[in-house]
Amino acid sequence: MKRLDPFSGIPGFVFSGVAAGLKKNGVRDLGLILAKRPCTAAGVYTKNRVKAAPVFICRERLQKGSLQAVLVNSGNANACTGKQGLRDARTSCRDLAAQLNIRPGLVAPCSTGVIGVPLPAAKITNALPKLIRHASPAMVSDFAEAIMTTDTFPKIVAFQDTVMGETVRVCGIAKGAGMIMPDMATMLAFILTDAAVDPTLLSKLLTTCTEETFNRISVDGDMSTNDTVLALAGGADSTAIKHGNTKKATVLAELMQAVMHELALQIVRDGEGASKLITIDVTNARNKAEALMAARQVANSLLVKTAFFGEDFNWGRILGALGCSGATFDMFKVAVFFNDIPAVKNGQGINENLRALKKTVKQKDIRVRINLKAGSCRAEVATCDIGYEYVKINAEYTT
Amino acid sequence: MKRLDPFSGIPGFVFSGVAAGLKKNGVRDLGLILAKRPCTAAGVYTKNRVKAAPVFICRERLQKGSLQAVLVNSGNANACTGKQGLRDARTSCRDLAAQLNIRPGLVAPCSTGVIGVPLPAAKITNALPKLIRHASPAMVSDFAEAIMTTDTFPKIVAFQDTVMGETVRVCGIAKGAGMIMPDMATMLAFILTDAAVDPTLLSKLLTTCTEETFNRISVDGDMSTNDTVLALAGGADSTAIKHGNTKKATVLAELMQAVMHELALQIVRDGEGASKLITIDVTNARNKAEALMAARQVANSLLVKTAFFGEDFNWGRILGALGCSGATFDMFKVAVFFNDIPAVKNGQGINENLRALKKTVKQKDIRVRINLKAGSCRAEVATCDIGYEYVKINAEYTT
Repeated sequence: MKRLDPFSGIPGFVFSGVAAGLKKNGVRDLGLILAKRPCTAAGVYTKNRVKAAPVFICRERLQKGSLQAVLVNSGNANACTGKQGLRDARTSCRDLAAQLNIRPGLVAPCSTGVIGVPLPAAKITNALPKLIRHASPAMVSDFAEAIMTTDTFPKIVAFQDTVMGETVRVCGIAKGAGMIMPDMATMLAFILTDAAVDPTLLSKLLTTCTEETFNRISVDGDMSTNDTVLALAGGADSTAIKHGNTKKATVLAELMQAVMHELALQIVRDGEGASKLITIDVTNARNKAEALMAARQVANSLLVKTAFFGEDFNWGRILGALGCSGATFDMFKVAVFFNDIPAVKNGQGINENLRALKKTVKQKDIRVRINLKAGSCRAEVATCDIGYEYVKINAEYTT
Repeated sequence: MKRLDPFSGIPGFVFSGVAAGLKKNGVRDLGLILAKRPCTAAGVYTKNRVKAAPVFICRERLQKGSLQAVLVNSGNANACTGKQGLRDARTSCRDLAAQLNIRPGLVAPCSTGVIGVPLPAAKITNALPKLIRHASPAMVSDFAEAIMTTDTFPKIVAFQDTVMGETVRVCGIAKGAGMIMPDMATMLAFILTDAAVDPTLLSKLLTTCTEETFNRISVDGDMSTNDTVLALAGGADSTAIKHGNTKKATVLAELMQAVMHELALQIVRDGEGASKLITIDVTNARNKAEALMAARQVANSLLVKTAFFGEDFNWGRILGALGCSGATFDMFKVAVFFNDIPAVKNGQGINENLRALKKTVKQKDIRVRINLKAGSCRAEVATCDIGYEYVKINAEYTT
């Protein structure tokens, strides 16, 4: 597997990102991904009962497993906007399809931004000619910028590999910084490949990889109304990968996993006001579900997150969170390590490592390993600290 | 029902609070409640799997339904302290019992403070003579002060009522400001009455009232290792209230409910760095459990809490939290009100009330009423905003 220059795009796709006036200060807020021809496509969506209008439309259109364009706006979530929201999203897609001369059903809409404000559909329609005009393979960074909200950097990752003499590339672009929690967060991600893939297989790969990557991160424990991950496979049908148990499918799965894992970590690292990337690694749980429950409870604990912000190895708060996770363990057996330095043994603090622990929590990347000694299962969740900046961003980001 | 001066104590009990040197700066950190004679007693404890040593001992001793003294320290939670922690808690209680000339089994220990540091039992033992010497009916405020951690004010509430010519009094003292969430928080509460009550009935009343009061509040979604609510009924046995369906039992239940409800609200109002008391009132849910799930999800949402800190009526975040609560509702029917001002109708924002909404969220007390239109059940959870102070307190309160 080889890392690719993220700014060089991926064969078969063009990108664009322009300012449509949805955000203030004339920054980019409208993005386009356009494939040379209709692609095999799959989607994974928020499980929030309150879903934004574009999520309904994506789900509907992706049932046929085919897409050619994705139209994304930031600055407005088009969520809680009633029937008008559905009409607005459809109108934008229809107008784009008309100008591209493709079927409207081949355009998927995505929105991110403030909830409850009607989508200024006219501004989007007005910006479409410019958006199309600027589309090119190298404009992937403009696209990545156009979909940002409170993100502080654009997120693009690309890898390639060779299988049976053929090169397979996967490129992913994502946004998301706050309102992030397991089971999809306020995040949008677009996973593109130049391989040809059967839609059922693509959907299966996307679901599996999402479960292992985007569903293993946590910024603040909230779940958004707009979360969407779309995968588009642009290769020619004749060579389509159909079965999961082929060499080609394995390589594609590995590439998708690598791209999505790195995007997920970038999202956590860009957590609103975050200064540290903290990996909660729960080992020896009774089963996989309990390992994940324990890791998530620790990763979401506000007391744990503020302790890391204060550069404090507060293992007491970690044990407190573990204890209300629902995972089975004996509190007189559990062990905790910070970057492999033992902090807790048999449920009690280890005094001789205080100096080493104080030093290690000052690092940017911290791995908290928790040994539950209740079984042999393991799960990892990535999280970040929460500090003043988080409060500032979220108290001042008003409706 | 009549409110009593909280500083006058309650017949049959004496109180004390002194500085034992567990906290810095010579502030009070050791408290005593002592009854004239052995009382009927009941307890409710944290459901966290990681329990502090004193919780184990309270549970064990309360099985007999009888107590005469409660020894409480702040500054140290005596949690995650292994077998030594259990020995330390037993030693303190035994030493107190010896000096009071009562059975050690009649003394319940409670601790609150930092987790994982061995309890300085010798300091407690040394302070016992002074603690006992200062005990008097009026020292209830010294006791309330001695059990505080990050609390900014002591919490004492007392009510009385008359039933069949007899006066019944209930006095409650509590502590708790951070790490508060439904199902018991880092909070200790002591509910005292001069009535005589059968232990089974007292336990039932305590459980029911706790469910409706302390388990309906949320500061930061974390659950502590030390939470304990103890009830002591000091009346003479001959007149004991035995059955829940008597006039006397009803009056006692009402008094306990009133005392515990007010203490619970005081805890939220004193939430670490909190500036507002926010009541999440979910109506017309499909059933009681879903009403509570919905109210708790909104009450615990960090995005909702930071929005209130920013004095923003961000109903979008409220709908987002509702949507991932697991409660059943139609997102195109739900309504939301801030202090009775309609903000959302049929899942969409109401524009004409913007000015009134902006004004109402500046108030100290805000009631958010959510109509799910899915049934006829209702539940209320009290919460507070989260701001810079919360982060400061929790990032700087180090191990």
